[in-house]
Amino acid sequence: MKEETSGYEARLRRIIASVEPVDTSFEPVAYARLDQLTKPVGSLGRLEEIACRVATIQRTDHPAIDRKVVLVMCADHGVTAEDVSLFPAEVTAQMVVNVCAGGAAINQIADSVGAEVRVYDIGVAGDLAPHPRLCDCKVAAGTANMAVGPAMSREECAQAVLCGIDASRKAAQEGFSLIATGELGIGNTTAAAALTAALTRVAVSAVVGRGTGLNAEKVAHKAEVVRRALEVNGATGSGAVGLGPDPFGTLSALGGLELAALAGVVIGAAATQTTVVVDGFISGAAALAATMLCPAARGYIIPSHLSAEPGHRVVCTALKLEPIIEFEMRLGEGTGAALAMGIVDAACRMLSGMATLAEAGVSQAKE
Amino acid sequence: MKEETSGYEARLRRIIASVEPVDTSFEPVAYARLDQLTKPVGSLGRLEEIACRVATIQRTDHPAIDRKVVLVMCADHGVTAEDVSLFPAEVTAQMVVNVCAGGAAINQIADSVGAEVRVYDIGVAGDLAPHPRLCDCKVAAGTANMAVGPAMSREECAQAVLCGIDASRKAAQEGFSLIATGELGIGNTTAAAALTAALTRVAVSAVVGRGTGLNAEKVAHKAEVVRRALEVNGATGSGAVGLGPDPFGTLSALGGLELAALAGVVIGAAATQTTVVVDGFISGAAALAATMLCPAARGYIIPSHLSAEPGHRVVCTALKLEPIIEFEMRLGEGTGAALAMGIVDAACRMLSGMATLAEAGVSQAKE
Repeated sequence: MKEETSGYEARLRRIIASVEPVDTSFEPVAYARLDQLTKPVGSLGRLEEIACRVATIQRTDHPAIDRKVVLVMCADHGVTAEDVSLFPAEVTAQMVVNVCAGGAAINQIADSVGAEVRVYDIGVAGDLAPHPRLCDCKVAAGTANMAVGPAMSREECAQAVLCGIDASRKAAQEGFSLIATGELGIGNTTAAAALTAALTRVAVSAVVGRGTGLNAEKVAHKAEVVRRALEVNGATGSGAVGLGPDPFGTLSALGGLELAALAGVVIGAAATQTTVVVDGFISGAAALAATMLCPAARGYIIPSHLSAEPGHRVVCTALKLEPIIEFEMRLGEGTGAALAMGIVDAACRMLSGMATLAEAGVSQAKE
Repeated sequence: MKEETSGYEARLRRIIASVEPVDTSFEPVAYARLDQLTKPVGSLGRLEEIACRVATIQRTDHPAIDRKVVLVMCADHGVTAEDVSLFPAEVTAQMVVNVCAGGAAINQIADSVGAEVRVYDIGVAGDLAPHPRLCDCKVAAGTANMAVGPAMSREECAQAVLCGIDASRKAAQEGFSLIATGELGIGNTTAAAALTAALTRVAVSAVVGRGTGLNAEKVAHKAEVVRRALEVNGATGSGAVGLGPDPFGTLSALGGLELAALAGVVIGAAATQTTVVVDGFISGAAALAATMLCPAARGYIIPSHLSAEPGHRVVCTALKLEPIIEFEMRLGEGTGAALAMGIVDAACRMLSGMATLAEAGVSQAKE
């Protein structure tokens, strides 16, 4: 951030400055324990890597996942005026109601791993009836149309990021040791594509996909809208936004209120030394923005699935994080992250709960 | 089976004849429901496939996973006399005790998905102290050395298969709707390699791997032992065993007591119309034998992970089943299958528990 124009942005900058990186000294400690457990050395592959990653976050070789929560950040996008989605914008609010009622995919998948689901209204257009599962953190009634100007002011963006930080902090204070990112927002693959293109300088065609199910013609139109948004917001050249100089400005101009909040969830998890499992393309683009704002946050992230949206591979490459599972999913809501929570739990139980060869009286490998 | 030489084999043949294939008419029914749920069509990718597969097994578009159990089949292998494993043979019995005590990887991973672990002594060398979690079904004190003659008689093999069938039936009768295969048996990657090579006619070099961690020299020695076993047991040419004529004879000559029992677990699951999640290379080779003995059983199998053992890819290709996850795991015990159980549960909850667009009042896609 090059300037502090608001109280929100200043508060955000102070929180970011306070984030401590993970303690990588626990990685060799955790591997030393792994190699004493009743299994051939290295025989649990990526499960061992995941367990060691949580060890560096929790600063112990006995990591534990006590409670799990999916934080679903919701908002609308002005860019839906450009006809970039197969679904009408009112579906955002309808789906918020559906998640609150327990009828969405994320509810069922979260149940399967014993995770709670919390829904945050960061910027849904229109009023939502109160619900015990819904937190009203509305910053604005959706973003402005990024194809004609900035999606958010820096003030709005910082406020949305802070909402996400507060959501993570609240969860961590309540004893949740595993947080998953989720979202709802018709039009948000368009915003994520613009944000990813601007942050990584990858070609627009590489990050624009079918979203909820567009045909080839509509995908081409969506790419044109993204190009216009980049142009209008000065993100195409070596200008003010993009890689390096001002990722916060990029997030403000091209992100979304729920994307900003998701970046906050990642930063808030890092600030409280809590493991955060990041979902697919939308969450990933937000996590990328978070790590550019706050490089120390990266170590707290565990990737989940590789989305069928093509831009997600670009995001994973930029984050240098390899997804755990590849199911050709492209729903969002946190569904891939919730699935991966079960695997993270299994990995931690394995490292913490298994007997050592000595404890179990199992013979060592020959010579 | 070309002949009925024993009561066990005759009983096995009757059970196999009674197995009904899955009801594929429930696949389109399940997809029709999926496409009405509150999510873009097809947006849950492989999770939708898994849910539909269970729908054809349970004959409903509301499949449910009530209770989960991992059946860990344990036995020793005479071929360990050929120095094919990094660990001494006594580790089989030691690890049986460890699993009973809750100290093994499978215990922790099963806990993470809420699955029970049951341990079966099908042929561990030496006596095991009784334990509530251990079922004594010992057919023999390990197999004979397949590098000098048949590992088992047909009688022993049929008895071991029946043990596995009974284990699945018991679980199904008790209300377990998801069974995972697991095993313990020092030397069993050698047996699985021989069995896979004989059943698929793939080159020995393509199915022999590092097992618990052999170096390249030991792997070459292990391949030589497998070649000798194939030769000694007449499985190299177009002879009596192998593809087609007598898969049961192949399983008897080159399998193991726990491999035979695992083939039984798959057949028993199919006989009771229960979903069975198959673990890695050992379980996969046994499942391949099961489907050659009982083709109708294949539809009841859900694959789990792709093992780091190279032979597992050969098995998956032969089974025409694509693993769900790829974690470079090579431990066995059912660890990959247990991980996948959580995903199968999530898939079923998704199909059965989500609201439809109409129920939730969510707008359809535009035109």
